[in-house]
Amino acid sequence: MLRRYANLLIMSKEQFPILTKRHSLSHMLAAAVLEVCPEAKLGIGPAIEEGFYYDFLLPDSFKLSPEVIEDIEKRAKGLTRQDFPFTVEEKQFEEARRMFAAQPFKLELIRDLEAAGNPSVLTYRSGPFTDLCRGPHVENVRSLRDVAWKIDRVSGAYWKGDSTRPMLQRIYALAFASPNELADFEHRREEAAKRDHRKLGTDLELFTFSDLVGKGLPLMLPKGATLFRTIERFVVDEELRRGYLHVKTPHLAKRQMYEVSGHWQLYKDGMYPPMDVGGEELMLRPMACPHHFMIYKDKPRSYRELPMRIAEVASQFRREQSGELTGLVRVMYFNLADAHIVCRPDQLEAEFKSVLELIVFCAKCFGIESVMSYRASLRDDVKAKYVDNPQMWEMGESILLKIIKELNLPYEEGKGHAAFYGPKLDVQMKNVLGKEETIFTVQIDFCMPDRFDMTYIDSTGAKQRPVIIHRSSVGCLERIIAFMIEYYGGAFPLWLSPVQVSALTVTDAQDNYARTVLTMLRERGLRCEADFRNETIGKKIREARLQRIPYLLVLGPKEVQNNTVTIRNRDTGEQSVLSPAELAEKLSAEVKSYAPKLGI
Amino acid sequence: MLRRYANLLIMSKEQFPILTKRHSLSHMLAAAVLEVCPEAKLGIGPAIEEGFYYDFLLPDSFKLSPEVIEDIEKRAKGLTRQDFPFTVEEKQFEEARRMFAAQPFKLELIRDLEAAGNPSVLTYRSGPFTDLCRGPHVENVRSLRDVAWKIDRVSGAYWKGDSTRPMLQRIYALAFASPNELADFEHRREEAAKRDHRKLGTDLELFTFSDLVGKGLPLMLPKGATLFRTIERFVVDEELRRGYLHVKTPHLAKRQMYEVSGHWQLYKDGMYPPMDVGGEELMLRPMACPHHFMIYKDKPRSYRELPMRIAEVASQFRREQSGELTGLVRVMYFNLADAHIVCRPDQLEAEFKSVLELIVFCAKCFGIESVMSYRASLRDDVKAKYVDNPQMWEMGESILLKIIKELNLPYEEGKGHAAFYGPKLDVQMKNVLGKEETIFTVQIDFCMPDRFDMTYIDSTGAKQRPVIIHRSSVGCLERIIAFMIEYYGGAFPLWLSPVQVSALTVTDAQDNYARTVLTMLRERGLRCEADFRNETIGKKIREARLQRIPYLLVLGPKEVQNNTVTIRNRDTGEQSVLSPAELAEKLSAEVKSYAPKLGI
Repeated sequence: MLRRYANLLIMSKEQFPILTKRHSLSHMLAAAVLEVCPEAKLGIGPAIEEGFYYDFLLPDSFKLSPEVIEDIEKRAKGLTRQDFPFTVEEKQFEEARRMFAAQPFKLELIRDLEAAGNPSVLTYRSGPFTDLCRGPHVENVRSLRDVAWKIDRVSGAYWKGDSTRPMLQRIYALAFASPNELADFEHRREEAAKRDHRKLGTDLELFTFSDLVGKGLPLMLPKGATLFRTIERFVVDEELRRGYLHVKTPHLAKRQMYEVSGHWQLYKDGMYPPMDVGGEELMLRPMACPHHFMIYKDKPRSYRELPMRIAEVASQFRREQSGELTGLVRVMYFNLADAHIVCRPDQLEAEFKSVLELIVFCAKCFGIESVMSYRASLRDDVKAKYVDNPQMWEMGESILLKIIKELNLPYEEGKGHAAFYGPKLDVQMKNVLGKEETIFTVQIDFCMPDRFDMTYIDSTGAKQRPVIIHRSSVGCLERIIAFMIEYYGGAFPLWLSPVQVSALTVTDAQDNYARTVLTMLRERGLRCEADFRNETIGKKIREARLQRIPYLLVLGPKEVQNNTVTIRNRDTGEQSVLSPAELAEKLSAEVKSYAPKLGI
Repeated sequence: MLRRYANLLIMSKEQFPILTKRHSLSHMLAAAVLEVCPEAKLGIGPAIEEGFYYDFLLPDSFKLSPEVIEDIEKRAKGLTRQDFPFTVEEKQFEEARRMFAAQPFKLELIRDLEAAGNPSVLTYRSGPFTDLCRGPHVENVRSLRDVAWKIDRVSGAYWKGDSTRPMLQRIYALAFASPNELADFEHRREEAAKRDHRKLGTDLELFTFSDLVGKGLPLMLPKGATLFRTIERFVVDEELRRGYLHVKTPHLAKRQMYEVSGHWQLYKDGMYPPMDVGGEELMLRPMACPHHFMIYKDKPRSYRELPMRIAEVASQFRREQSGELTGLVRVMYFNLADAHIVCRPDQLEAEFKSVLELIVFCAKCFGIESVMSYRASLRDDVKAKYVDNPQMWEMGESILLKIIKELNLPYEEGKGHAAFYGPKLDVQMKNVLGKEETIFTVQIDFCMPDRFDMTYIDSTGAKQRPVIIHRSSVGCLERIIAFMIEYYGGAFPLWLSPVQVSALTVTDAQDNYARTVLTMLRERGLRCEADFRNETIGKKIREARLQRIPYLLVLGPKEVQNNTVTIRNRDTGEQSVLSPAELAEKLSAEVKSYAPKLGI
């Protein structure tokens, strides 16, 4: 099903006070900007995850130089040393318009509020500065004194995010409850920048973008494609072993198919537009579910054929705002390790359990299980939000909670987060900034079998409706690759490394020996490289280390003479001397050891 | 580059006499139809590969029943027993219009010929029947007496192939030089129908189509997807072994990219229409070349990095007329085992040779090398048709001919068949009807490096233009699968078979033993199935044979008692008794034996 894999901002209650302070600080910032530039036209100024921002339209002559920024920050901090209460007032539209007559963006917001049927607007005054604002705010600017905050950066932002409207200057600030928290955030951000998959993706030659190809459409370079292929084959082979049926379906379908599924009516804006091809409207698929349902419906099915686990690493296409596109994480096209399990209601529990076991197994193989957690997304009391099938809901929710407890997985409950067609499990990962993101979901679906009239014949010969589990095992390959680049800082486990071994020769007298050794390793399926350049061994080692290659073979005259290799371990720095045969044995055993023995 | 993989009708000179006779027979057919239905409006009546046809608009009241067809055939044959010479006459347009006043389609053709600037039209008279026709014809209808011919079938066909124009009745006839040839053709056609990949694709559950997905968009069912995956992994692994760099690029790009390549200007009609996505025009790619060029252009390249063999099993999208879509052969989307070798001119010969060696290697692994031949497509004398770079052309053509002779491959020359940007080698396969088809091409390209400004730095530090080889190793996966289904009649070699072994138990007392045996086989990577149904062993064997499974394990009480298996070979019918361990060894050795030892 259509999931928006946004960076979800999940706020705990403890965060509210600092959010209020951040928002109040944005008023201080706006007041300070008006002090140094009275012609500034104000946009909006909300609190955000690590601080706040405020948007301004500034005269061309007024430049936000580092000195000006410093001055603004000083003045805003000065304001927090005053004794100004925040005073809220209700204003009629006419009065509000008079108050903000010099502020065209505020006038537009007043007009919007009026058009939306609001009876009046609110303003918040703190000292000499008054803003159109819904609040809430701190009681007095004094409570902002102990916030650890600083202006962070300036960037451009279209008014209302609309590229046909004026470009404003957005001043971002960081703001935390204590100097420690601010320092900690900045430290983590620095670390994250070093591990940023976009930076490492370039440094390690994993992927690239091209202006002619288009935004959000990554091209996997040979090393990135090797990583992709390794993960894809791992997933496909593991799923085949677990009884999944892998299929291969086209990347597009008639618009009509998405009318039957309901996606056209509900999610049109997230889909690519239809193409008129020979009188038919074809669309790139935003998800693979309906294609898999067509495989199911290819012939009548018996209860004996269920569960039918239809799987595919499927290309999928979503329309994203170009401003939101980020590296491999938010893209215009991605490949999801997808599957749809069509089962009888009495099989739902066992199937749901197998799905979770597979997810845990994959995470362990990738070495990332410690940063994964789960959210059980259940109904709330607003019955109208959900498909009316109370019996199914109860079964689905109880199975979901039962299995997650049985497997002893770290989880929280998310009441009201269920999809309209059934409960779901969000698989969460904590990124290098410590922020949790939903990387994919497992969904129990009571609705699509109806919409697509999917049936099976039960043991009495009667037609029945199956239940569907929509699931992934590792999520989008692009996204999990981005995640692992950052998690490992590019130093992947041996089995995933695009280049597993590099042979570095001291002089060209060792080149032939190196070739013989590499041939032995390649015959064992190891991915090897050699550096035969006319450079010093020191330079060769330095450059290979930057490429995070797990094992470096240093080959000099002694190695040739003794028929040995000196290997250097990337992670431990240890060096050891082995025969080529021992090396091949050791490395291929290490590659095979990635799959933990889970007994599942 | 854009190839139209049409069923090319390649006519040798020996075929001309029979083609002339076929065309003359179509006049006899038209004359006979006018005898039984004087109101018939005549369309056109050309010779075709196996005979001829004629199109007619008939009154609603006139039905082409089997009796009527028989009568028409008899009358047409009667006409060939007359002594009517074929007489050609030139007519002015006014006179022609008077002659064909009762024939609206002929009047339209006369108008078309006049509009095209012809000075007059030709008519051919044979006895009482005269047709608007360019000829040529036999001298006298007597020479048609010894042609072995018969009416084959009737189908609908729009006038001028335009679905907005009237639907005519097309009467097809088979016509050959001798009764033996006719019988032979009919026999081969019957055999081909049994092997038709569309029929076997359904019977063997390899692929399907769905009205909701759309025409020409095959869905590979689990067994077809297994075949696809097996071929894909084989190709990718073999190419990696040979120094190809596999990449993964998106299925679409900006329209602008195809303006740079020139495809937008030249082949727009064969491409899917652009989609407006966030203000950019994105297009599904008709070929992967420009994406691979972007990978090349990702950074400056040195002569040391060449040859760079950029490869991908790439999804590609072509617009086909819906009437031309056929099974897996003519589709709206396919996956090509594609690559672009960027090399220095001095590397072209060695690279071209390696490409041919790979193609031959793959064909041997698939067991289809005996039906493959080659066509060297070279320039003709029309200089304007080709990129002006005589030195490059000479080099390209001489390398192409040299290598094909060196490798001792069966080939013919096709002067004038070169692409405008360089010579090419067409890889031809003979299908079950004995007809040759171009399944893919290898092209030497002197043009795209200019259009995309691709360069490398040579050993002196100067910028140089590389040459490009566009090539495939096995062609489109869909197409080679279709070809192999028909070639093998669905009985694939062991290593390609979607199911390699099926265990059939006599009673359920052997089910557990069967599971133990299959687990051993699966651990060796063999693809297994079991038939535990409560059916007789005879029925189980019959059904498994219809599925063309290479090895059947028959397991009864004796096998359990002796800890053996009785295996039945699909191809030889031989049965033998082995221990489970011997069986696993034998089958996995046979799977591995597919790659012939070519020493290349």
